[in-house]
Amino acid sequence: MMNAEPSPGAESTRTVWWHAGTVRLLDQTRLPLETVVRTCRTWTEVADAIRTLQVRGAPAIGAAAAYALALAAQGREGVEARAAVEEAAAALAASRPTAVNLRGALQRMLQAARGAVEPLAVVLLREAEAIAAEDVRANQAIAEHGAALIHPGERILTYCNTGSLATVAGGTAYGILRRAHALGRGVQVIVCETRPVLQGARLTTWELQRDGIPATLITDNAAGHLMARGEVDRVLVGADRIARNGDVANKIGTYTLAVLARAHEIPFLVAAPLTTVDPAAPDGGAIPLEERGPDEVTQVAGRPIAPPGFPARNIAFDITPHHLIAAIVTDAGIAQPPLARGLEALLASGVGASGRRPGA
Amino acid sequence: MMNAEPSPGAESTRTVWWHAGTVRLLDQTRLPLETVVRTCRTWTEVADAIRTLQVRGAPAIGAAAAYALALAAQGREGVEARAAVEEAAAALAASRPTAVNLRGALQRMLQAARGAVEPLAVVLLREAEAIAAEDVRANQAIAEHGAALIHPGERILTYCNTGSLATVAGGTAYGILRRAHALGRGVQVIVCETRPVLQGARLTTWELQRDGIPATLITDNAAGHLMARGEVDRVLVGADRIARNGDVANKIGTYTLAVLARAHEIPFLVAAPLTTVDPAAPDGGAIPLEERGPDEVTQVAGRPIAPPGFPARNIAFDITPHHLIAAIVTDAGIAQPPLARGLEALLASGVGASGRRPGA
Repeated sequence: MMNAEPSPGAESTRTVWWHAGTVRLLDQTRLPLETVVRTCRTWTEVADAIRTLQVRGAPAIGAAAAYALALAAQGREGVEARAAVEEAAAALAASRPTAVNLRGALQRMLQAARGAVEPLAVVLLREAEAIAAEDVRANQAIAEHGAALIHPGERILTYCNTGSLATVAGGTAYGILRRAHALGRGVQVIVCETRPVLQGARLTTWELQRDGIPATLITDNAAGHLMARGEVDRVLVGADRIARNGDVANKIGTYTLAVLARAHEIPFLVAAPLTTVDPAAPDGGAIPLEERGPDEVTQVAGRPIAPPGFPARNIAFDITPHHLIAAIVTDAGIAQPPLARGLEALLASGVGASGRRPGA
Repeated sequence: MMNAEPSPGAESTRTVWWHAGTVRLLDQTRLPLETVVRTCRTWTEVADAIRTLQVRGAPAIGAAAAYALALAAQGREGVEARAAVEEAAAALAASRPTAVNLRGALQRMLQAARGAVEPLAVVLLREAEAIAAEDVRANQAIAEHGAALIHPGERILTYCNTGSLATVAGGTAYGILRRAHALGRGVQVIVCETRPVLQGARLTTWELQRDGIPATLITDNAAGHLMARGEVDRVLVGADRIARNGDVANKIGTYTLAVLARAHEIPFLVAAPLTTVDPAAPDGGAIPLEERGPDEVTQVAGRPIAPPGFPARNIAFDITPHHLIAAIVTDAGIAQPPLARGLEALLASGVGASGRRPGA
């Protein structure tokens, strides 16, 4: 049941894993300058890691939270174990409100707990490992479906981090870039730095460099100018939650890129596992958008960039309406417009690469 | 001829001034955390200050360069003085390519030098002081014309720094905000941080705080989301160069804001002195766009935010086409669409508040 340490130099970095009764995770706040693995011995340590963005990315926090519940059950039995797991699940669900994968993973873990005949710690660790393994398989399928859309020599603008670091391993949108590169498509990547947390500048660059994919870093505000100059062939982003009508919640700034892409007639592609679709959200208006503390805006790397105490807003996500999206690539296949119908068909037929129905 | 030190607590900060045979300037790279005045004793020190953005903003660098030529002539006579001034003018003109005010101020100084009967140092200092004084007057006129357009309670999104710090004193677009606030219009300002050099986060916030204007800092990529939520009533920016047809070169990211404003039917207003119009540029394609070193993108406040050596692009300006602009506020009045005709009329009639024809 216990994984060995992920081997360095593997094709794709593993972000979170179980090791000898602990949850290990790559501390993403230290990248790209330091590669530090954190060992969490309690579920509260995992919750802190999620809240402080040591582990981030919708699929990765889903898996991390699942492992956290396994930690909560560990060393406890019966009623005590169940109470600990329920307390942990409630706290973890509140830690990041926008990504639906977190809530989905927790619900699935609680369901497994309810039906458990074996000791809870055993059942929950098995379920967490299954969630993690399914995420890796889903990402392989996304990469496969998405890479088929990429033409040779495309200059693809991407945003935030949707790579291995955003998932258990492999990545969503970034996985498509890696696969297209491996297939010799000669893609060139333009990565936006993605303020305020700089996931593009710190994390996607780190993965691009390791994968040897030709790429350039730009400030977020330079995307429009490059599009106007005809230097962007496609925009490719991930998603934190997708409504039934195809509206997409993703990192703040995604909507701006979608408006720009439409104005320049550049296809705007979203990639995410089918588990990112929230059947309970009819449209983007039903998706809660996390607002984080102002310090992420007024400071960079712990240093102030604005006068002390200056008011700042830090809305972490925005909604891109479905009509700006050319297609959504999932592990179960590609939803084309009208996205509401496309997603419905995938959800109905679709078990995705994970072998499970979303929301089931 | 020598100015006293600007008095602290004055309505508007003075950015660059002549004092006892030296050029003094507020070192804007140290703001907002430290208020440091630099003393330049040679024109090369002023040129360095311009290149390293210690003094920046199109009108401010025009005046700083004019004072630098006065420094070049100081202590020299006849042929030697003329040679020093011409050498300085050529080097200064190459230091920042996009802002036309720099080139305009230098041409005006060289013209004054050509007709000089008094010692060159005297003539050039008088001309530099005139350029500085005209800038202050032009900004007062811009504030007057522009404030008349602002409705009570408007939430105005602004970009980069167009305040006192971008000019000799008073500011262009920001001067309109200050005047509207002083008139009790109850404006609320949303200021974009403006990566990579963070002029919005570091400089505009500093001025807003001193002026007591209600304001909020956001990351550049959050502008679209706030517009979609109906939280922006107007976009107000400055300009580094304006082509005859009304195309505007301004800080990278301005174009993105203009596309967003159009998509949300929000008026997009530009403010600049008439000296920012370049009669030699028929349209934006004729305006050179400065590309600066990648370190401004890959580092913040001297600390790396990307893997060492990762390729980055740092295009400092972009072009906003005239059809996205609702009006251009100048010291000579307001150009309405069609902007080509509006600007032509202002240039023809117009002497602006400076009392001089641009390009004359």
